[in-house]
Amino acid sequence: MVQVRKRLKMQATANDKILLAHGGGGQLSEDLIRQVILPRLGGHGGQALHDAATFQAGSQWVCMTTDSYVVKPLFFPGGDIGKLAVCGTLNDLAVSGAQPFALSLALIIEEGFPIASLERVVDSIGRTAAANGVQVITGDTKTVEAGSADGLFINTTGIGLKRPGVDLGFDRIAPGDKIILSGTIGDHGMTILSQREDIGFQSQMQSDCAALADLIGQCLESGSEGVRFMRDPTRGGLAATLNEVVRATGRSIEIQEELVPVNPTVKAAADMLGLDVFNVANEGKVVAVVSQDTADRCVDLCRRHPLGRQAAIIGQVKAAVQAPVVEMVTRIGGRRIVQMPYGRDLPRIC
Amino acid sequence: MVQVRKRLKMQATANDKILLAHGGGGQLSEDLIRQVILPRLGGHGGQALHDAATFQAGSQWVCMTTDSYVVKPLFFPGGDIGKLAVCGTLNDLAVSGAQPFALSLALIIEEGFPIASLERVVDSIGRTAAANGVQVITGDTKTVEAGSADGLFINTTGIGLKRPGVDLGFDRIAPGDKIILSGTIGDHGMTILSQREDIGFQSQMQSDCAALADLIGQCLESGSEGVRFMRDPTRGGLAATLNEVVRATGRSIEIQEELVPVNPTVKAAADMLGLDVFNVANEGKVVAVVSQDTADRCVDLCRRHPLGRQAAIIGQVKAAVQAPVVEMVTRIGGRRIVQMPYGRDLPRIC
Repeated sequence: MVQVRKRLKMQATANDKILLAHGGGGQLSEDLIRQVILPRLGGHGGQALHDAATFQAGSQWVCMTTDSYVVKPLFFPGGDIGKLAVCGTLNDLAVSGAQPFALSLALIIEEGFPIASLERVVDSIGRTAAANGVQVITGDTKTVEAGSADGLFINTTGIGLKRPGVDLGFDRIAPGDKIILSGTIGDHGMTILSQREDIGFQSQMQSDCAALADLIGQCLESGSEGVRFMRDPTRGGLAATLNEVVRATGRSIEIQEELVPVNPTVKAAADMLGLDVFNVANEGKVVAVVSQDTADRCVDLCRRHPLGRQAAIIGQVKAAVQAPVVEMVTRIGGRRIVQMPYGRDLPRIC
Repeated sequence: MVQVRKRLKMQATANDKILLAHGGGGQLSEDLIRQVILPRLGGHGGQALHDAATFQAGSQWVCMTTDSYVVKPLFFPGGDIGKLAVCGTLNDLAVSGAQPFALSLALIIEEGFPIASLERVVDSIGRTAAANGVQVITGDTKTVEAGSADGLFINTTGIGLKRPGVDLGFDRIAPGDKIILSGTIGDHGMTILSQREDIGFQSQMQSDCAALADLIGQCLESGSEGVRFMRDPTRGGLAATLNEVVRATGRSIEIQEELVPVNPTVKAAADMLGLDVFNVANEGKVVAVVSQDTADRCVDLCRRHPLGRQAAIIGQVKAAVQAPVVEMVTRIGGRRIVQMPYGRDLPRIC
């Protein structure tokens, strides 16, 4: 009895402070949002678990999404915090079926941060926004004392107009639907990690950081009826995205390990660090759940796009026999459950 | 010559890093935004110096504004970082002539931050949003390692619908227009400072942190034609707001010191610390420039509202004789120029 009390007390102590894992995009993140944050927002935060919220302005449906970026290091192969912030926010709008058109930009800068670095980051923001046809329309700049922040944190909030005729949502997913992945997994997270830990693979990896609005727009325009749901598998990786689908729909998902594209260097680096590449963040990939008869056309379209050359159908939605799960058929023909990541693998990857 | 070179080099060294003053809302903030940030956003950031940007969604004009909050301490007499974030963002929308209706909420939380404190802050956000009829519709949570941030930083981005028939802007300001201030100045900044420095006035000061949308809405509904421009005098205080008007319009402003309401304790605390209360931040006040024939009605309306009981006409717009300036007639009948604050007085007051 004393032991039980002690254990309970230890749990309470561990749970009364924020852990890094609370920001990991896995189970602990979801618990924090569902148990601590949403109930206090008066039932108003009902959309807050989606990538973007939707509101009506006159007759027009508008999407809004927000993300803060705390990636470390600020500059990495394939991108920087500025490009990441613009791409990440645009992708959240795109997977919600919106055409992005405006961003806000809020900077929190540590005293002593080199202005030359700030210039590089803002250059990157300007370039990425322009390349994707969006404008930075409003902003904010705050400074904090040396030691009170780590260089630079960015918030971008994005606005997009809902594409007419596009209807995406968990509720449209049905057994038989195919799961499309637009390319290799794990590149972003492993690149960031390789910059922080000396694991000897640095030169061969590059973040996949990219804005997917054009690719996604093409898929939606060609067969919007058959596209049920889309999500960019960022924090928590492919495993978190597929598990969210399973939880929200009550359906199971079966994927084939051999069909999931992975850069061999990324796989080797993940294995070496004991990480599951399915849990590692991506910043330029989309998971789409589409109807059977749309799947091939959608993959073809992706493969003709520079950002989707390795797109593949990796699995399908199934009616759940018992509890709904994400199940993977391994390369050697075995089966394993792909769990929702708990959340502590990789801090500050976005 | 050697001395000159050395001095130039020292300047270069001082200018190549971010200073706390870059976030102070004064001259250095403006320089950073105008010289470093806006040119890199491809001409797209043209609206970025305003409190809010406007875009068209279908036939509806929509306002958007963003602010990050890094106030220290997180809890203070009269409010906390959560209430401050909601009020500050709603006020930026309100002074832009919009009716706020939605917010995004992005949290950056330091590892080890007490969940009980997070709960207090989110409670405050929920309560303040609900009291003002706005919904938190989307959000984001990031965590960073202990030592990489100072407890909690918040970004709120707000959306409002432009009020029909309301046209506010620097270009509508004309000589003869009156300057209305909705109440006492300096309360927020001095309260925050008193919590950080032991100046012995703590118990007698309270932040004015409040959402002004209702007060502003009443003024606009009663005489929108005569209301030319509004601004909430936050960082940089009343001095920064009036100087912005002068710079943007090329008109001068004359104010009467004795007409500007100041809480005596706030004045005494500012004097003791060598601060000019005109430069100190407010978080529940509005400065309105209104036509002569609207001014009395507008002040009356403010005074009947709980948040505007001490509203007063404090001065007027004049044609500039030489360079446009903010001039103050002092209590003893002298005259002094109210300068744009340089920016280093009070870090992290919002």
